[in-house]
Amino acid sequence: MGESREDKIEESVASVLEEAKELQDSVAGHISKSLSDEHPLRLRALALDSKILALRSSLDSLLNNKLINHSVADKLDEDLQRARCIVVDGDASSLLPGHAHGKFLRMFLGPINVRASRKDVQLKVKEEYNSYRDRTALLFLIFPAALLILRSWVWDGCLPAFPVQIYQAWLLFLYTGLALRENILRVNGSDIRPWWIYHHYCAMIMAVVSLTWEIKGQPDCANKQRGVQLFLQWAMMQGVAMLLQNRYQRQRLYTRIALGKAKRMDVVWGETAGVDGQLWLLCPILFILQGFEAYVGLSLLNTAFVGQISEWQVIICGLLLVVMAIGNFQNTVQTLLVKSRFKAKMRRTKSKQRLN
Amino acid sequence: MGESREDKIEESVASVLEEAKELQDSVAGHISKSLSDEHPLRLRALALDSKILALRSSLDSLLNNKLINHSVADKLDEDLQRARCIVVDGDASSLLPGHAHGKFLRMFLGPINVRASRKDVQLKVKEEYNSYRDRTALLFLIFPAALLILRSWVWDGCLPAFPVQIYQAWLLFLYTGLALRENILRVNGSDIRPWWIYHHYCAMIMAVVSLTWEIKGQPDCANKQRGVQLFLQWAMMQGVAMLLQNRYQRQRLYTRIALGKAKRMDVVWGETAGVDGQLWLLCPILFILQGFEAYVGLSLLNTAFVGQISEWQVIICGLLLVVMAIGNFQNTVQTLLVKSRFKAKMRRTKSKQRLN
Repeated sequence: MGESREDKIEESVASVLEEAKELQDSVAGHISKSLSDEHPLRLRALALDSKILALRSSLDSLLNNKLINHSVADKLDEDLQRARCIVVDGDASSLLPGHAHGKFLRMFLGPINVRASRKDVQLKVKEEYNSYRDRTALLFLIFPAALLILRSWVWDGCLPAFPVQIYQAWLLFLYTGLALRENILRVNGSDIRPWWIYHHYCAMIMAVVSLTWEIKGQPDCANKQRGVQLFLQWAMMQGVAMLLQNRYQRQRLYTRIALGKAKRMDVVWGETAGVDGQLWLLCPILFILQGFEAYVGLSLLNTAFVGQISEWQVIICGLLLVVMAIGNFQNTVQTLLVKSRFKAKMRRTKSKQRLN
Repeated sequence: MGESREDKIEESVASVLEEAKELQDSVAGHISKSLSDEHPLRLRALALDSKILALRSSLDSLLNNKLINHSVADKLDEDLQRARCIVVDGDASSLLPGHAHGKFLRMFLGPINVRASRKDVQLKVKEEYNSYRDRTALLFLIFPAALLILRSWVWDGCLPAFPVQIYQAWLLFLYTGLALRENILRVNGSDIRPWWIYHHYCAMIMAVVSLTWEIKGQPDCANKQRGVQLFLQWAMMQGVAMLLQNRYQRQRLYTRIALGKAKRMDVVWGETAGVDGQLWLLCPILFILQGFEAYVGLSLLNTAFVGQISEWQVIICGLLLVVMAIGNFQNTVQTLLVKSRFKAKMRRTKSKQRLN
């Protein structure tokens, strides 16, 4: 009886081992076949992509030398946009090389590939990033507002260290998450301006530095905590601006997707192309914010050099704020220039069409 | 002349748009074909995996009821190991469901898939993780050692705040990276014990908390900095232990891979199965380390409750160190128990074979 059971299990084990080897062979075969099927498609996608770029530049040169009718050129331009959109935003996009994994991703994640191979996954990542930013912007407004309100109503004008430090730790976590996600979006083909990612690196450093910054208490804490208070006010303003930006960008992005003019992986941290009335609300707010950022930075540097407090944290935070303000300003202006050039072109085309 | 050029470019653009549509269709077709080819392979892999598990348990029950010869059972056990190794560690592994993405990964990275679809990439990730840990362990030893040496030779027994805070920020960065990488390894099928990941979460929290902890200077800083000093000594010991662990584990892992007994994605943060002489060097060091960890934690709690310093940071760091010490001890003991059971089984088998 035992013998026969032994025989039976021996047989099953042998057949299972055989099956495992067969499965390994089939899967290896499937993988290599799939790769070899993919190869010609990849070549086609690359060739098509460069062909589109070449046509775009020859179209531009024809237009500049006035060898082509404006309305025809516009129609062709639109067709080229559509073709590029199909290649870059369709299923073929996974065959094109994305942005390389940057050092930041390597440092935190190692050499793992974060490129989504299927377009629907890429879109899910983008969607989730947008809703993450929405949730974040709300907290960005509420958290410092609560601290400032409690400060004057409950804490007698003197912020206790613990809640401020919780807030700073949250900022560090938040900026790390944003920097990681934006790097991932970039790998997946988004055209996010590199500055917005560098901006988050600066903000990460500032959050770490501010954690080591002792929050001084009584006596005379209104004076000692001037820096923290300015910082919180600036953060609140940033919350408002982020909410406005998110609304504006999402609306613009959907319009542009509908027009087939944008790749859906584009992240527009506030200031990428788009022509809309809301911009005249957003731009002044952004410039005021940047001015206030520079002001907070300079007044931190002032307190450090003129006198009262001369901790290294004050100097570093001041410098970082000034650098961020300048970078933000520069990038906003550049985006506005791109926009206005685009607008001028549109206007030219339209008047031409009317003349015709 | 202009007309003909216009015609020519119109033609090219039309053909490019057509090509783009065709490419999109071909790629979509390729993807859906590849998925439908994959489906039966996936089913086979799943079926085989559960068949192997079923055979393992029936083999165990036969062995317990003494219905099977020990040497035969051992041979069958080895065959089952080999079959499972082929399924779980070969190309088929990408078809089996991995561990789900945990909350931690979602929080930092969003819904991006970090599962490598090809085995060679998975192995690269694992290799890189190992060398990252090696580099880390060296810094883990050198960094606190340098601080302690400078403290007594240059800084007159009084640690300045800045280098200690740099060290704490580095710890935070390091533990975040380790936690992310280990979560990624887990998604890729590694059997790393969950505790070692929780341990890194605790260490991350401790690093953030210690950043907010004011490093007090003169006068009497030898007394005030007692906690920091203990912590640095413990960190140095941990560096030594990590170096030993890394050497031991890599050696064990390669031996086990050669024996076909381990999945190559297994991460063994120090204390997973293995039967080796080096263990008798490693284990006492680990237990001493854990004892010292608990001692540092308890003496922090002591200073907080008995008297001198009563900052909340001291209490939290003390509690976290005690929790980590207990968890580490528990997991080390459990692993040793698994090892000794395995050894006993081996010994039983061998004596049986000798009797036969």
